[in-house]
This record gives sequence, C-alpha cells and structure tokens, in this order.
Amino acid sequence: MAKKQWSSIKVFAPASVANLGSGFDVFGLALTGPGDIISVANNSGKGLIIKAITGDKGLLSKVAEENTATVALKSFLQAIGKPISLDVRIHKKMPLGSGMGSSAASAVGAVFAANVLYGSPLKKAELVRWAMEGERVASGVAHADNIAPSMLGGFTIVRSMDPFEVIQIPVPKRMYIALVHPYVHVRTSDARAVLPKNILLKTAIRQWGNTASLIAGMYSNDIALVGRSMEDFIIEPARKSLIPFYEKVKEQALLNAASGCSIAGAGPSIVAICDGLSIAKKVGDAMQDVFNKNKIKSQVYISPIDLKGARVLNKK
Amino acid sequence: MAKKQWSSIKVFAPASVANLGSGFDVFGLALTGPGDIISVANNSGKGLIIKAITGDKGLLSKVAEENTATVALKSFLQAIGKPISLDVRIHKKMPLGSGMGSSAASAVGAVFAANVLYGSPLKKAELVRWAMEGERVASGVAHADNIAPSMLGGFTIVRSMDPFEVIQIPVPKRMYIALVHPYVHVRTSDARAVLPKNILLKTAIRQWGNTASLIAGMYSNDIALVGRSMEDFIIEPARKSLIPFYEKVKEQALLNAASGCSIAGAGPSIVAICDGLSIAKKVGDAMQDVFNKNKIKSQVYISPIDLKGARVLNKK
Repeated sequence: MAKKQWSSIKVFAPASVANLGSGFDVFGLALTGPGDIISVANNSGKGLIIKAITGDKGLLSKVAEENTATVALKSFLQAIGKPISLDVRIHKKMPLGSGMGSSAASAVGAVFAANVLYGSPLKKAELVRWAMEGERVASGVAHADNIAPSMLGGFTIVRSMDPFEVIQIPVPKRMYIALVHPYVHVRTSDARAVLPKNILLKTAIRQWGNTASLIAGMYSNDIALVGRSMEDFIIEPARKSLIPFYEKVKEQALLNAASGCSIAGAGPSIVAICDGLSIAKKVGDAMQDVFNKNKIKSQVYISPIDLKGARVLNKK
Repeated sequence: MAKKQWSSIKVFAPASVANLGSGFDVFGLALTGPGDIISVANNSGKGLIIKAITGDKGLLSKVAEENTATVALKSFLQAIGKPISLDVRIHKKMPLGSGMGSSAASAVGAVFAANVLYGSPLKKAELVRWAMEGERVASGVAHADNIAPSMLGGFTIVRSMDPFEVIQIPVPKRMYIALVHPYVHVRTSDARAVLPKNILLKTAIRQWGNTASLIAGMYSNDIALVGRSMEDFIIEPARKSLIPFYEKVKEQALLNAASGCSIAGAGPSIVAICDGLSIAKKVGDAMQDVFNKNKIKSQVYISPIDLKGARVLNKK
C-alpha cells in the first residue's frame, strides 16, 4: 500500500537535556513541555524557505544555510531523493542557548516533519543521523546527545558515532526533572574551551563506573542510584565556574532531596533528577530562590520525561 | 536467636573475570567451575596458620603475612573482634596468574568462611571490603573488581571505592563464557606498566558510551549489545602485545560467532561472551586452536555465569 503524501505537516519536537553529569556526550533525555513546533509544506519548487520564526525574540537566522532546521532538512531531502523545496515555519516554545537542546529540537522537528510529509519512508531511529547534521551548524560538530532523545523520546545512550548507534533506555515512572534556566549567557565555545583535552585514566575509570551504574539505576527503578551516579569528575569541575552560583544552586537541590544534580548540556541551565513530582517542585523552587536572591532572572521547568519524542500535531 | 557457631567450615569461592573490555577496573563476573576450596577451623589460640595449600604447584606462600587469604582474614577478624587464630586450608581448583581472579577467590573464600564460622555477623555484600585487603598483597592496590563477583556471584559494577559501593546486575540466561588460558606468564606489574596514565577525553567518552551500553545489554538480555559494548579503546590496545597471538585468538572468537572478546583481567587469559552453550564450545575450541598451532599449551573453560558466589560446602 502506497503511503499517503501530505501537502503540509505540523509537528512538535521536545526540548532535551544532554550529559546528565557522568554521561557527557552520550546520555540525553527528553523534557515534557518545552520544545519546537515546526511546519513544513510543499512550495512547488521555490526552494527551501524559512517563512517565519516566532518565539525566538528575533535571534535566529532565516537564512536556510544558517538555520539548524533547514540545514538538517536539506541533508535529509537529498538523502531520500526529494526536491530541496519546502516552506518551513518554526515556533520556539523554549529558550535558546539554555542547555535544553534548542538547536536539536529545530533539526529534529524539521526532519521528522519532512519524513511524514513524504509518507514516512524512514523510521524515527533512522532520522537521527540526518537531524544531527543541523548540530554541525550550531556547534561545529555533529552531536546526537540532544538529537536522539528529542527524536525518540525517553532516555538515550549514544553508544557509538561510527558506526552510529543509539540505545533507548526505560525510564522509572517516578522520575521527574527539575530544571532551572538562569537568564545568563554561556557561549558554547567557552563551554567547550574549558574542557581538558587529556584526563587521568584513574579519573576516567571513576567516571565510567558512574555511567554504567546510572544505567543500572534506570533499569532497576532506583532513582537514588541514578542520582548519585550522575557525579561527574571531569566536566562539571571544568564548567561550573561559567555558571554563576552553580554550587549554591546544586547544594539547595540536594538539600531539598533531589537525587542528583548537574549542568544541563553545556549550561547555563541546571538539571536535578527527583523521585516524584512533589520533590521536583520543591527542588525547582529552591534552585530558583538562589537566583532570585542574587537578582538573576530565571525560569523553572518541572516535568516527567517525555516518552514520545517528535510527534505530529496536524496533517493536511 | 543467637546464631550457631561452628568449629570448622569449608567453602567454595568461584574464579572471576574482571574488566570485560570497556569496564576496566569496574566490571566483573563469576565463572562456574574453577575457584578455591577453603576451610577454616578454630585452633584454640595458636594464631593464624596456613596448614596446607594444594593445587598451586607449590607456588603460593604459606606465610600468613604473604598470602592473600590470610591477610584478608586477619583484617576481617580484627574488624569483627574475634581472635586472630584459625587454621586455614586452601585448595586451588583454578590456575594462578591467569587473569581469572585467583587471589580474589582465596581472599573471598577465607573471609566468607570465617564469617560463617562466627555465625554470619556480616552480610556477604559487607564482606567485600575486607576481602579486598587481600588484593593489596597480590597487586599493591585494594581492588574489588574480582572480589565482588567472587563473593556475590553474577555480574557486578564497582561503582565507587570511596564511599564503597558495588552494584549487582542481572545476567541474561543465554550468556556463556568461553575463556582460554594460555600457559604463558604475564607479570601484573608489566600489565600495569603499559597502561597510559593520561588518555584523551574524546577516547574516554567513547569508552563510557560502551560501559553504559554494556549494562543496558545485560538488563535487556541483548547479548549482542553486551558483546559489541565490550570494545575497549584504552586498555586492550596497550596490553594486547603482552599476550602472544592475542589478535588471532580474538579474530577466531568473533569469526565463530562470539558476541564479544577481550582480555580477562590483566591476562593472559582471553574471554569471549557467547549467546548459548553451543556457540561457546565452538568459540573455545577455535581460540585454543590458535594456541595449539603455535605450540602454546592452554586450557579452555566453558561456563555460564556463576550466580551464587561464595558458598558453604561443609559445616562441622
């Protein structure tokens, strides 16, 4: 049976949090609530055109070669042999440069929408590698740690880039995320520059003891184990000084019974893993209080893990 | 109810394989078959005496201060406030210096036996840290990666040494080990000396992508995933030249459908993870063939994972 082709598709791609402490560059999870709403529509050979971007405070480029959504889209359309010709509309229902995977959500949404538009020739898992191409524009490197959870939902491990393999992990029902996004700017280039190029083998061993144990915690519904296995001996020590009051915020999260706390992606957002909604709310308030007291505006997100990933909102 | 105290206890502690490729210093599993048979008996204040060691070809020291079993035993007896006075008999039902956790089996067996002798005041998981003291004699460092699986059985992660935490992981039913022990000598000091002190962060990231994914494979009964997640970018490249014909043996293991293959502990044994007994037998034969053709004697062990760990054989 030939699959139906559509003239216009509107989708949602969730925000996501990469790293989760010990799992730098390999772990990621999808958030419930924030994300990108993206529509693509056939435009009869007019080329790849960004018709509108809203919710971005005018910060994103409408030039197709500069926007992560259209860069990813172009590589995908080439791959499936379809014309590089669509109208694209992007609505950011999430902050930019926050550590919440904004560029990933755009790339995921655009590629996922185009796939549906053409009758879903590829599976979601197969779309990840094309969406990754958008990350090259955003950060200079094709990363999948935000792309994979935004596309697939849930919690993902990027096991290997070559050959490319992503593994989806079950999520404990009681796991909630409390995330605070302070309105400060951390340049991705700075966040990369402070990282050590070399690390001690013995430090790496402690780190992979934690990455392995974090996955054991996910499968065994042991949120406390997940939390303490987030401990990161390499990235957090290098990056924490880029985020004002980071240590105080983390201290408050743990004092209020967060199971674990670390930097969300490259920051400046700070993410806490919590056992249940009521703890997550308390933790979110306590984290925001630190920024309030220090006159830094911030936004809190309290959410379970989004298990669906990218999904269709509307088809025409 | 006061627990019964015994005058003599005979126990078995299984051999074990540490590292499993990507999980250097943190992963370990227990083997079915080889191990140590150890008896301890009250000797009415005569001190800690090794009465007999058999199966060791005369290689092990009977001086209590030099033997891993009695060193671990002494630290344990001090900890539980019992007299440092037992007769100890050790029968090695496994090779020494093989990468199969010989010193760990001795330390585990001795501490476990003494705990039972005194009415089991501590749980098995609590005994691990005392058995570890024996590893200080064997390798200069208190390691738990062989101790934990020999004591607890199954597959273990040493998440953290300080605070000390070991996590036990479920084992896929169809998982079999094929291990070949070539009769060549690899000094533990050489095996340590060839390791890099520093590694690239980007290499460490690839490694912990694998440690995390290996645990996902264990929980999801995906032995193929376990196998390919054994890939080790750090230790195997440094150590493989210490083991003659290592690459050929590994090649034969994988050609014969092993899911993964790596160095067992510090070597010289080579361990393959296999999906089912019949593959394990074929893999064991193929690995041994390489040594046979090159006139190196070897022994093959085919076994499921030992799920029991240390256990009592006899009480008097």
